[in-house]
Amino acid sequence: MSKLNPVPRARSRRDELIQALVDREIGFHQLPRDLSADEAGEIRRAALEELSGTSLAKTGSYVLDASRVACRNCENFIGAVQIPLGIVGPILVRGEAIDGEVYAPLATSEAALVASTNRGCAAIRRAGGATVRVEDVGMTRAPVFRTSGIEETRRFLAWLEAHTEEVRRITESTSEYLKLLDIRPYTFGATVYLRFRFTSGDAMGMNMATIACDRAVREYIEPEAGVECVALSGNYCVDKKPAAINFQEGRGKRVFAEVVLPRVVLERTLKTNAKALLEVQYRKNLLGSIAAGSAGFNAHFANVLAAFFIATGQDLAHVVEGSMGVTCVEERPDGAVYASVFLPAVPVGVVGGGTQLDTQREALALLGVEIDPERPGMAVRRLAEILGATVLAGELSLLSAFTSDDLARAHERLGRGEVPPTGPELEIKS
Amino acid sequence: MSKLNPVPRARSRRDELIQALVDREIGFHQLPRDLSADEAGEIRRAALEELSGTSLAKTGSYVLDASRVACRNCENFIGAVQIPLGIVGPILVRGEAIDGEVYAPLATSEAALVASTNRGCAAIRRAGGATVRVEDVGMTRAPVFRTSGIEETRRFLAWLEAHTEEVRRITESTSEYLKLLDIRPYTFGATVYLRFRFTSGDAMGMNMATIACDRAVREYIEPEAGVECVALSGNYCVDKKPAAINFQEGRGKRVFAEVVLPRVVLERTLKTNAKALLEVQYRKNLLGSIAAGSAGFNAHFANVLAAFFIATGQDLAHVVEGSMGVTCVEERPDGAVYASVFLPAVPVGVVGGGTQLDTQREALALLGVEIDPERPGMAVRRLAEILGATVLAGELSLLSAFTSDDLARAHERLGRGEVPPTGPELEIKS
Amino acid sequence: MSKLNPVPRARSRRDELIQALVDREIGFHQLPRDLSADEAGEIRRAALEELSGTSLAKTGSYVLDASRVACRNCENFIGAVQIPLGIVGPILVRGEAIDGEVYAPLATSEAALVASTNRGCAAIRRAGGATVRVEDVGMTRAPVFRTSGIEETRRFLAWLEAHTEEVRRITESTSEYLKLLDIRPYTFGATVYLRFRFTSGDAMGMNMATIACDRAVREYIEPEAGVECVALSGNYCVDKKPAAINFQEGRGKRVFAEVVLPRVVLERTLKTNAKALLEVQYRKNLLGSIAAGSAGFNAHFANVLAAFFIATGQDLAHVVEGSMGVTCVEERPDGAVYASVFLPAVPVGVVGGGTQLDTQREALALLGVEIDPERPGMAVRRLAEILGATVLAGELSLLSAFTSDDLARAHERLGRGEVPPTGPELEIKS
Amino acid sequence: MSKLNPVPRARSRRDELIQALVDREIGFHQLPRDLSADEAGEIRRAALEELSGTSLAKTGSYVLDASRVACRNCENFIGAVQIPLGIVGPILVRGEAIDGEVYAPLATSEAALVASTNRGCAAIRRAGGATVRVEDVGMTRAPVFRTSGIEETRRFLAWLEAHTEEVRRITESTSEYLKLLDIRPYTFGATVYLRFRFTSGDAMGMNMATIACDRAVREYIEPEAGVECVALSGNYCVDKKPAAINFQEGRGKRVFAEVVLPRVVLERTLKTNAKALLEVQYRKNLLGSIAAGSAGFNAHFANVLAAFFIATGQDLAHVVEGSMGVTCVEERPDGAVYASVFLPAVPVGVVGGGTQLDTQREALALLGVEIDPERPGMAVRRLAEILGATVLAGELSLLSAFTSDDLARAHERLGRGEVPPTGPELEIKS
Repeated sequence: MSKLNPVPRARSRRDELIQALVDREIGFHQLPRDLSADEAGEIRRAALEELSGTSLAKTGSYVLDASRVACRNCENFIGAVQIPLGIVGPILVRGEAIDGEVYAPLATSEAALVASTNRGCAAIRRAGGATVRVEDVGMTRAPVFRTSGIEETRRFLAWLEAHTEEVRRITESTSEYLKLLDIRPYTFGATVYLRFRFTSGDAMGMNMATIACDRAVREYIEPEAGVECVALSGNYCVDKKPAAINFQEGRGKRVFAEVVLPRVVLERTLKTNAKALLEVQYRKNLLGSIAAGSAGFNAHFANVLAAFFIATGQDLAHVVEGSMGVTCVEERPDGAVYASVFLPAVPVGVVGGGTQLDTQREALALLGVEIDPERPGMAVRRLAEILGATVLAGELSLLSAFTSDDLARAHERLGRGEVPPTGPELEIKS
Repeated sequence: MSKLNPVPRARSRRDELIQALVDREIGFHQLPRDLSADEAGEIRRAALEELSGTSLAKTGSYVLDASRVACRNCENFIGAVQIPLGIVGPILVRGEAIDGEVYAPLATSEAALVASTNRGCAAIRRAGGATVRVEDVGMTRAPVFRTSGIEETRRFLAWLEAHTEEVRRITESTSEYLKLLDIRPYTFGATVYLRFRFTSGDAMGMNMATIACDRAVREYIEPEAGVECVALSGNYCVDKKPAAINFQEGRGKRVFAEVVLPRVVLERTLKTNAKALLEVQYRKNLLGSIAAGSAGFNAHFANVLAAFFIATGQDLAHVVEGSMGVTCVEERPDGAVYASVFLPAVPVGVVGGGTQLDTQREALALLGVEIDPERPGMAVRRLAEILGATVLAGELSLLSAFTSDDLARAHERLGRGEVPPTGPELEIKS
Repeated sequence: MSKLNPVPRARSRRDELIQALVDREIGFHQLPRDLSADEAGEIRRAALEELSGTSLAKTGSYVLDASRVACRNCENFIGAVQIPLGIVGPILVRGEAIDGEVYAPLATSEAALVASTNRGCAAIRRAGGATVRVEDVGMTRAPVFRTSGIEETRRFLAWLEAHTEEVRRITESTSEYLKLLDIRPYTFGATVYLRFRFTSGDAMGMNMATIACDRAVREYIEPEAGVECVALSGNYCVDKKPAAINFQEGRGKRVFAEVVLPRVVLERTLKTNAKALLEVQYRKNLLGSIAAGSAGFNAHFANVLAAFFIATGQDLAHVVEGSMGVTCVEERPDGAVYASVFLPAVPVGVVGGGTQLDTQREALALLGVEIDPERPGMAVRRLAEILGATVLAGELSLLSAFTSDDLARAHERLGRGEVPPTGPELEIKS
Repeated sequence: MSKLNPVPRARSRRDELIQALVDREIGFHQLPRDLSADEAGEIRRAALEELSGTSLAKTGSYVLDASRVACRNCENFIGAVQIPLGIVGPILVRGEAIDGEVYAPLATSEAALVASTNRGCAAIRRAGGATVRVEDVGMTRAPVFRTSGIEETRRFLAWLEAHTEEVRRITESTSEYLKLLDIRPYTFGATVYLRFRFTSGDAMGMNMATIACDRAVREYIEPEAGVECVALSGNYCVDKKPAAINFQEGRGKRVFAEVVLPRVVLERTLKTNAKALLEVQYRKNLLGSIAAGSAGFNAHFANVLAAFFIATGQDLAHVVEGSMGVTCVEERPDGAVYASVFLPAVPVGVVGGGTQLDTQREALALLGVEIDPERPGMAVRRLAEILGATVLAGELSLLSAFTSDDLARAHERLGRGEVPPTGPELEIKS
């Protein structure tokens, strides 16, 4: 080989692959394996640009570690989407894994969300902090089995009860962090659901639970009990769908946060008062959600959750479960109110999945989330406690905004860019 | 200070602001307005880095237009989160706004999602395409009012009926794209909800609806009808919460997609067969969701929706509504199956909000989404049709994966990075 | 045969039939048609007595008109069940079909229910009466059709819209009292539901609606639109099952009742006060039902409904729909409270079905329910208004009982018969 | 006083009391205690007849034991309502408490219900009987408590866990038949629900559970734990309201029944076939109830339950819970189908309440229900097993009727009395 024209030769192979993609001779997942993830991504972008006549230049300007991402997070990798990140806080969290102030990053494109939540953080701070507790309900996965009917179902459940320890041994052997809490059966007709529930250390645990169930089902339950598994997930888990089972039993973390807001904080920080706040809570969060047939008796859990989830690398589809839950606001003496949020099912983790991505790791570090090998589960507990307080902040500010009529006006000005991005007046917008 | 060294002076001002943030003399939203958004973001990052002892370098490496973003999308801007983007397709969409093939970008950190959906796209393509229809139900906002009881409620509703045209005129005057479809009242006790429903051209329409309701309520309904509005959103809208009203009435777009898969496509592309697929559908999507008390009778709408929403700049909290809906799989002659997805409430837009962000605009352009001033609403319809077909692809592939037991194994290998990111075998993973 | 011995001959035929039943030579529905209903019932009882070795003497002691009942209400007639009837009131009803006092009969075997409701009636009376309004939403029936998919569904719905008047003509031709209000379609996949909604004069209307739909479907829709009806009821009606559609859209009558209770009535009649009542309402009817995932945000609508339904000959399975709904209790000045009940779906009638039975007719007459041919629907409206006020009375008394801890004690004493059935102290039991 | 005219004197006192009632000098609950229940009822009827100008003669013609009823079941007693009773069967029940044939009484005024269910019984009989199993989930009652927030709630739950045995002792001391199974807490904000679950022998158990909770709460939990009980029932029980908690956890009895119907039974007895039945099941019971947002995935559980409940003296408002549940129909080889019913929450009893009434006792005796002191709970299990099989019979017949289009026609003819009450053709009506 001469050195005379190495670039054309290199370009030539690249160009050939691009052309092959454009001509549909190969699929986007069929690029040669010796290409680096960055190279493969660039070739895919180039082909897409040619196919569509549009530019993907900004998509290609990423800081992610493509070689890792393309293996572990996203096949047919072509780059990255960027979502704006804002900061709120400090928020004062009185929890078990954190007892102090912290700044929380929120990734969103919804104008006013950061400013409004920030105001809620100020209110909580001035009220002495939010008490937060997180219950590690555990991650669930529920394979579904077919039997011949009532009698075989009964025998199967009796067998399972007699062999739970063996099932525990097998499932727990798939990960050192997995602990089987229990197996909840639900049956009717010729169908049996077994809802396995595991704690999973600092991981969200969904894939760990799936792998553990797979092992137990394929290697032990099916051959030994002689009952066929129809699907490893039978929707009684249930993942990423609103559901009563998760409201009743919880899934992932159950999060409780509360604060008592004195009259002065209501008036000065939230520009409201107990009476007005109570009425919004009553006619909107309680009666309104009743009217709507909703399982979300809150103002906007999902907004804050989504922004927090994106920032910290959570599975975004889990916003679905997180949108369920109940905000309470109750009168207390001297013009104060008690306010609380309850989120029955929040699947979160601080290892694996999106939490390993480069920008997301920075967000986790900013929150002080660090794995402690001696205390598995404490890092994710810290995350969930901060989340709980931030959701509470979001509720307080939005509910207050309704009482002072400024929701629409804030959206109107912020959304249209008429308000500068900084300045004290933002604190009262939401 | 002498003029000799202006850079230190500039640095000095930056450092002073950083110190002021660190010392809590000012809040993060209180930086001087003459700073550019990039500068303000850098100062905030520096302060946070000092406060937390961690780096935000990658968060600061963004391609977004900070000056725009900081005004319109995200207060207290500090940078961007990056989420991996993969490509699936081409998927063959037989809709009203698109009748042809398209590649769809999915942003996710969940291993196997892109590969699996890509396999579903192949199946749809080989089956002749997915028929998709989108109904523009309209965006809703429901202010809540307090009356003195049944009789005042009746008078109020009668007044409203007599003055609907005036309300229409006022709401529609707030945007040239807003059309009021109807107002659905729901009342009990001393509470009245008015669920306004608007079409909003190519915008998702939520803020437009809020602004329009605010105008009508504050300037006309409250003063003229003499009934007090308690909150501009009374949760009968209902936004970002799972709810029966949205399942029944729809919200945003109602999306229908379907395909008939011949036996050969089931066998070769999806590695399954009609009988196995029907049983998974029956015991998981139907009976399993019944057992769980879920409103999502599907395998994983939310996964595909979330990935599609991130890629295209949608409001991510709207994944909540999008997780509701029904997948059907029915037997057809000669070993074929009919498969369909139904999403009753999908709020999406192609202007405003996150759709204006730089990387998201590239994704929209890649999908061929272009506003046509002559045909408002057609661009978003194209987006929703592609979304519907992609969700269907995701369902087909995951349901098939259950029948061949490879869900857990795919997660096991992909999630742990044991499988290279390219190569034909990916097509059968999910 | 001689005439000497006619009784043995008659007995002989009777005995033969009894023996044939006992020997299973004929079924209970196969007795000769020339027997009167009383005779057939007696023969069935005799056979059952022989088969089971138990007496059915009291079952045979009925005042019902067997010849009518056996034809129209109950096949294989063997007699009657008797349920105790008590009286409450007078209750002061401020409605559109009744504006005055009335005594209401309640049939129940649950100790304390009549006494407690009676106390609620006294409270309402002393507070100046309950305002009640009834909305005639109409009775529904929703046949389900199968299409080949999205496109045929669209064509079918378009056809229907173009031919609604013909459908109206046919359905309304089946009864002079039936008016078609609208047809609400709901579709996904290859399935179409058409929810027909009718007013039906003073009848509950279910059978009328079924007959009308049958006619329209069989004679017109199927042959003309070429779409097959799978079942005349597709459960989107939906009858006798708790369901969001009925909560949202109503079914039968939507009932609203309210009263403002001054402090003195709270204290003297209900032995409670505003603060205590508000807290029970909040933690039980609102938060408790939220926790339970219930569609019944009330204390015990179903108890009063069931007792009222039995007394007045309603279809008892309709208690299911009637159990849904919302009780509100709100603070008013000077220690008063506003209390309301809302029942979204109450199917009731005053002609046909059980309302024609002898004892039930007496109850209807006692309530002043009389058909006025000039004003169809007014008689049933009167019934529904009285029902609404009585349900409100039941709520007030039970909620108050919780505040004074006497629920369990009342049950303990009344249920065990330790309290005489009369005497003023009963008024405070519930 | 002379003996000359005792009747006028007796009449005189009676007349005076009637007049006092009519004049509202006394209330209907204020008659002198020395009157017998029959006399008091007669006086009330006379007063009502005068007040309303209508007759209550048939209401006064009862066989109930008024002295007992007026004490234990129904205050302000005025007589009885009579409901027609029909007989179905024999139905072949393969359960644990009954393994054989039985005739079941159904009380109803809905034409065709008895005939149709009877046909279902024939189908089950010819198919070899219905397998039925009943799980005694237990009766529940959930008092609601107020705390100061998260921390006091935690302390309270920890206290309870440490003192469960004492609570058990107290609750179980209130009845020899009551066994405390567990206490399920549910908490958020400042509210705590404790859902006590008891078995209660052959009684339905609701009042027993209430009394036991009252004792434990008032005498032990409140004073010892220092937490205030707001209401003895906090709606997390939840009684007589449709609710997810009961679907998930059960309440009373959980009933499972199933049968495999060979092709010949489908064709000859039910006039249908597997394919048609499967489609009705699919589009009506599954998809239709999904569309309706219903928790009742069945055709008409509530109809059969209501008729069975009236006949056997159950609390009729419990039809609400009983309407929830799932019917399954699945294909089996050779044109057979597997059919099952699942009722998650059926509160029933055979002692106490309405089961002691005279006609209802006859129905229980006919069903062979007899208390066995050695085996508490077996009598009610027998009842629940027969109920399960009868509900299954009702489902089979109605679903089949839809496939042969005869529902409306049956109603049309039977409801209008055009069909004689006996004769073999009835078997195919429903």
